Amino acid sequence: MNTTFGENLRTTVFGQSHADAIGCTIEGLPAGESISVDALQAFMARRAPGGRLATQRKEPDTPEILCGMVEGVTCGAPLAAIIRNTNQRSQDYKAIADLPRPSHADLPAEVKYQGHQDVRGGGAFSGRLTAPITLAGGIALQILERRGIRISAHLLSVGTAEDRPMNPMGENPEDLQKRLSRGLPVLTDDAEARMTEAILAARKAGDSIGAVIECMIEGLPCGLGGPLFEGFDGKLAFGLFGIPGVKGVEFGRGFEASRMKGSENNDPWEISPDAPGAKPRTNNAGGIAGGITTAAPVVFRIAMKPTPSIALAQETISISRRENAELGVRGRHDPCIGVRAVPVAEAVAALAVLDSLLSGPAVLPQTLERPSIPTLGKISNE
Amino acid sequence: MNTTFGENLRTTVFGQSHADAIGCTIEGLPAGESISVDALQAFMARRAPGGRLATQRKEPDTPEILCGMVEGVTCGAPLAAIIRNTNQRSQDYKAIADLPRPSHADLPAEVKYQGHQDVRGGGAFSGRLTAPITLAGGIALQILERRGIRISAHLLSVGTAEDRPMNPMGENPEDLQKRLSRGLPVLTDDAEARMTEAILAARKAGDSIGAVIECMIEGLPCGLGGPLFEGFDGKLAFGLFGIPGVKGVEFGRGFEASRMKGSENNDPWEISPDAPGAKPRTNNAGGIAGGITTAAPVVFRIAMKPTPSIALAQETISISRRENAELGVRGRHDPCIGVRAVPVAEAVAALAVLDSLLSGPAVLPQTLERPSIPTLGKISNE
Amino acid sequence: MNTTFGENLRTTVFGQSHADAIGCTIEGLPAGESISVDALQAFMARRAPGGRLATQRKEPDTPEILCGMVEGVTCGAPLAAIIRNTNQRSQDYKAIADLPRPSHADLPAEVKYQGHQDVRGGGAFSGRLTAPITLAGGIALQILERRGIRISAHLLSVGTAEDRPMNPMGENPEDLQKRLSRGLPVLTDDAEARMTEAILAARKAGDSIGAVIECMIEGLPCGLGGPLFEGFDGKLAFGLFGIPGVKGVEFGRGFEASRMKGSENNDPWEISPDAPGAKPRTNNAGGIAGGITTAAPVVFRIAMKPTPSIALAQETISISRRENAELGVRGRHDPCIGVRAVPVAEAVAALAVLDSLLSGPAVLPQTLERPSIPTLGKISNE
Amino acid sequence: MNTTFGENLRTTVFGQSHADAIGCTIEGLPAGESISVDALQAFMARRAPGGRLATQRKEPDTPEILCGMVEGVTCGAPLAAIIRNTNQRSQDYKAIADLPRPSHADLPAEVKYQGHQDVRGGGAFSGRLTAPITLAGGIALQILERRGIRISAHLLSVGTAEDRPMNPMGENPEDLQKRLSRGLPVLTDDAEARMTEAILAARKAGDSIGAVIECMIEGLPCGLGGPLFEGFDGKLAFGLFGIPGVKGVEFGRGFEASRMKGSENNDPWEISPDAPGAKPRTNNAGGIAGGITTAAPVVFRIAMKPTPSIALAQETISISRRENAELGVRGRHDPCIGVRAVPVAEAVAALAVLDSLLSGPAVLPQTLERPSIPTLGKISNE
Repeated sequence: MNTTFGENLRTTVFGQSHADAIGCTIEGLPAGESISVDALQAFMARRAPGGRLATQRKEPDTPEILCGMVEGVTCGAPLAAIIRNTNQRSQDYKAIADLPRPSHADLPAEVKYQGHQDVRGGGAFSGRLTAPITLAGGIALQILERRGIRISAHLLSVGTAEDRPMNPMGENPEDLQKRLSRGLPVLTDDAEARMTEAILAARKAGDSIGAVIECMIEGLPCGLGGPLFEGFDGKLAFGLFGIPGVKGVEFGRGFEASRMKGSENNDPWEISPDAPGAKPRTNNAGGIAGGITTAAPVVFRIAMKPTPSIALAQETISISRRENAELGVRGRHDPCIGVRAVPVAEAVAALAVLDSLLSGPAVLPQTLERPSIPTLGKISNE
Repeated sequence: MNTTFGENLRTTVFGQSHADAIGCTIEGLPAGESISVDALQAFMARRAPGGRLATQRKEPDTPEILCGMVEGVTCGAPLAAIIRNTNQRSQDYKAIADLPRPSHADLPAEVKYQGHQDVRGGGAFSGRLTAPITLAGGIALQILERRGIRISAHLLSVGTAEDRPMNPMGENPEDLQKRLSRGLPVLTDDAEARMTEAILAARKAGDSIGAVIECMIEGLPCGLGGPLFEGFDGKLAFGLFGIPGVKGVEFGRGFEASRMKGSENNDPWEISPDAPGAKPRTNNAGGIAGGITTAAPVVFRIAMKPTPSIALAQETISISRRENAELGVRGRHDPCIGVRAVPVAEAVAALAVLDSLLSGPAVLPQTLERPSIPTLGKISNE
Repeated sequence: MNTTFGENLRTTVFGQSHADAIGCTIEGLPAGESISVDALQAFMARRAPGGRLATQRKEPDTPEILCGMVEGVTCGAPLAAIIRNTNQRSQDYKAIADLPRPSHADLPAEVKYQGHQDVRGGGAFSGRLTAPITLAGGIALQILERRGIRISAHLLSVGTAEDRPMNPMGENPEDLQKRLSRGLPVLTDDAEARMTEAILAARKAGDSIGAVIECMIEGLPCGLGGPLFEGFDGKLAFGLFGIPGVKGVEFGRGFEASRMKGSENNDPWEISPDAPGAKPRTNNAGGIAGGITTAAPVVFRIAMKPTPSIALAQETISISRRENAELGVRGRHDPCIGVRAVPVAEAVAALAVLDSLLSGPAVLPQTLERPSIPTLGKISNE
Repeated sequence: MNTTFGENLRTTVFGQSHADAIGCTIEGLPAGESISVDALQAFMARRAPGGRLATQRKEPDTPEILCGMVEGVTCGAPLAAIIRNTNQRSQDYKAIADLPRPSHADLPAEVKYQGHQDVRGGGAFSGRLTAPITLAGGIALQILERRGIRISAHLLSVGTAEDRPMNPMGENPEDLQKRLSRGLPVLTDDAEARMTEAILAARKAGDSIGAVIECMIEGLPCGLGGPLFEGFDGKLAFGLFGIPGVKGVEFGRGFEASRMKGSENNDPWEISPDAPGAKPRTNNAGGIAGGITTAAPVVFRIAMKPTPSIALAQETISISRRENAELGVRGRHDPCIGVRAVPVAEAVAALAVLDSLLSGPAVLPQTLERPSIPTLGKISNE
């Protein structure tokens, strides 16, 4: 029932693919933050449809911020923003309302909502709903960036075509930036070529292809999260599984760690000149130990399934006739949903980080002053 | 800050490894449910320490249910239960409080709580806290079982030693039961032999080894969960990352789906005599499409890292001296935390399922009567 | 930080008085509910400005439902609706941003948000934000009404002018309806005359006047709510204090009960032909005992303070000059905010009731069928 | 379903009157706070039974803190504490399980939980559950006190016997302290005499009597709370209605404000040497304007109904026989539950205040340093 992400920064996403509008509210946004709408729109454009590797549905995805800001600065009140749906072709979908698409939510939604769900374009289950997630995350990103927190994702693989993995100890910011100038968000030219080929081949075959997205968060303080259900990894994973098509989430070595020995996987601590005074020498943990951040970069990967909507004929049932039937999905679809999900992963990460930063302090100060960032300094003079 | 799992069934876990007690509260437990304490204790014994493949620390893990039940039946009030800590050897840990263990939360906790955290035995970050999770989940399991919902996990792999994967269309209940009669919770004798060997080799080398746990939930109705942040997968993943040592979670084909085509990965629908009237012919999705259950078994896997506490010498820092140092971890440790985490995964799954079942109905009835379980029936008479 | 009301039905209100729009999202709304926009607009018109007893600011308050419905029927997805702000005169307020209005949030908001808050027309603290609350509550009311739940409020007093109190055992529906045909929502002609006189006198004096609103909820089932912090009264009170200007909430006899004896205040039970088979003979409790509904009407009263914005000169400070100063509030204001708050109280009550109805069942059925409404019937065959 | 109070400081209360134990968990408690168990026990003793003005049931109410602290200092992990129930006489209640007590939750609980509720001593609805609320609040109070926040309540009235009201601009701390040395927590000797007389008269008559409790919170910073459902008043009222027997809550002038004019009720601002630089000259608002604290003392009153359990014969029904019946309540009861509820009101206030203090900052700092307490200072140099 809870369609909201976050505890202290609470993002609620609303809308259906063919409703009048989609959008989001963000509660708990701190006051006094300048938000550049141009920069926000540039970020959102990274997941917008169009281009030969994506669906042909053209939506400008122009966000309209209704409230929560005064002259470009957050005012402490909830921010609400909407994106009008202008380019729907609902007739594409009407014919197939009776034929639930394989590996979509069509049939379980029919059961759950007893036929009242919005069937047009996947309704509330549409990948289009990642636009308001990106909107909210794009605002969070601007707030984080000016505090030295950078979040960058790339396509690690499309099918069997692979990019080089990120360096878990940190990447050169300029190299990370370059991935945005390519046709696909990857770190190497070679990967771009092979992934493009894989995607075009899938499209040509009337089929689709899966992908893995890798994301890194740099500049986090040590100490976000907590034990058990307070873990930063659990919060982030919850948000990431909110992206349609995600089938797996792993941190650091992830599933590979299951085949390693402790002596291989452990990250030794060493003295560091930077806060908090120590850091892990390696980062197999992906920046999280015991649910809390270690000050090393947080590294995670998400598995994106191949787009379930394909042009090839598929088997399904007819709800009205109660018999097996055949389905050819028409409409416009991405051959690889992983491509456009790259900024969405960054957006979810930004929301998780800002929510954690806004959680109350672990140590309450002795006066009503707010505490400064904790370091290891205090411990040395015991 | 929120150390609670669930929305309508809310489980709060408390305690530190060497505190007087650990335990949990469960809010929202329905009234009128008989709970067998014997069956609960038998379930909890599956994760209890002892045995040659686990730590030598012996804790009987006897749960004491303080309230929430009257004569063995839940009464609608919150249930609280505790487990006394009786076998601590705090002196084992005092010496190493200054030397944070690699890949543990010791150092980030020192920073976050500014030296006030409980350092004895890992404090609130200890794997011992999975005992109350298992307690709560064991209660949920009894409530689910009598409604035909079965949850079964096994060790899919330890290092490179592998068990056969579960059949995602469903397993024979008797075969599943057999895994509990082995020394390790696996489906095949062969896997037991090879995994035992791998664990003993790791122990002998003063090292540890990772594992993958696979879990299947059978008997779920269609329609649990919802779009985006209401997804059943996100809820489950959030809970699973609350288990110490989990580094990855995947559903169905998971990361493998990223290398597949849509035509390979899609699950076609077909008419079924059982509710809700249709089912997926294959189950690559792991029982969840678009965030809601499809009535096929929910299948997930979690990656467990190798135990970070190992006997081999490791590098770390001295907090007091602010210099690099060497650490040999003493104390008693599991060479493979994956072994005892198997029932913990089942417990978290049970809590997620019962929480979802207790969420409000998607369709409110026309009178104040509660609705019956929705099926596809209504649609056919349109 | 949590600006949301409800747990299973979650209403988030957004907007500032002079932002582009105000509005709300409603998560958890059941699917399949027809919503009449005409009826909704008629309900919202009851709190709209205009008329000689209210502010002259004219806002049509036309709600635009952006999503969550398909052809007039809820679809299970979150509903979002906005109301455009079209009639702002921001220049009225600019001059007084430096002079915080007494008994408004202006000064504490200046401190809390460090000058970034929206000062135009009270920003997010404006009484205008009761429009989206009324919008959300108006939708809930339609859902409740067709299940026999009626919610009706009236002005019990304005200053010292009093209406007759409602009969806590239930009112004649036609009598309740009559209050809507008067110029003021009261039960008696006499009250209308005296209250009108009091309000016009306050306006003429450049002053304002307080009020008490009484509200009754009829047709509730027995058993909503629970002990301690699960109480239906606590939930309702939380929501009611969200209405700007509310300074007190009481149920049944309320503060009067503090002067009574147990033998006077207690409500004896008696056998009843209606579900659940028994009812209280009197209703001093206002329909709630121990936090749960008794099936008698829920009766509550809220104290509305006099409008803090008055034309008379008042003392305040100049923020920029850091000295005491004088203030004359210009702009358009209600002489009695209690008048327009009557439907807002009904709206909050509707949201609280529907949220409680959607909370999980206290008793889980033995199969996966949802339970029917509990009665006392089961007990008699023990 | 949510039996928890607070968002960032989350207190969950568990137990039934005659269960093995009652208790609470507190999540989000900051680390590094010394807690004196002696002081806690002294605070809890103020609501403990015993004495001629209260029930004769003798429970030492010794709290056992199970975890969350190390050597008397909070460690950042959830705190759990229990109080054993040692003095139950369950046989007192067995006979009357069939005869629901008027104005208790007995009958609605029977319906809601379909006969599975704990009927012994009122079960989870018992006033005994205020012991763990007081325990949790007593811990919060110690944390607040050392930051200059004082919370003090007294009996404002018992029946028609009245104490003098507190001075809303602040009380002399020594005068407040004196109320604790009297037999009843009142400010004047005269009130003590008249209230004692009223209570003893009620007891002698086999009856009971209602009361009003007034409470003041001094030393709060300006800016806690927020608009609409984020209000500090709503949060506090929610918690206060969690105390069994509360039928009304009002802030400042409360219901009296409904009879006042704006010019009488408004609190003018004036320059102040203390943070934040300005304060209200009067405090009719009870320290809260528009949902946020003004830095003036927060003043609230709660109406306590007369104890519903009385020795006089009362009318009720027999559940098993389905006919009207007569009831004489045996057992041991307080003639005035208001007496022992005085420290409970303080406890709830402390939990609400600490929760608000731990909510994220309204203004995020430009670096990762936590902000200092906001004042008006920044505004003057514009």
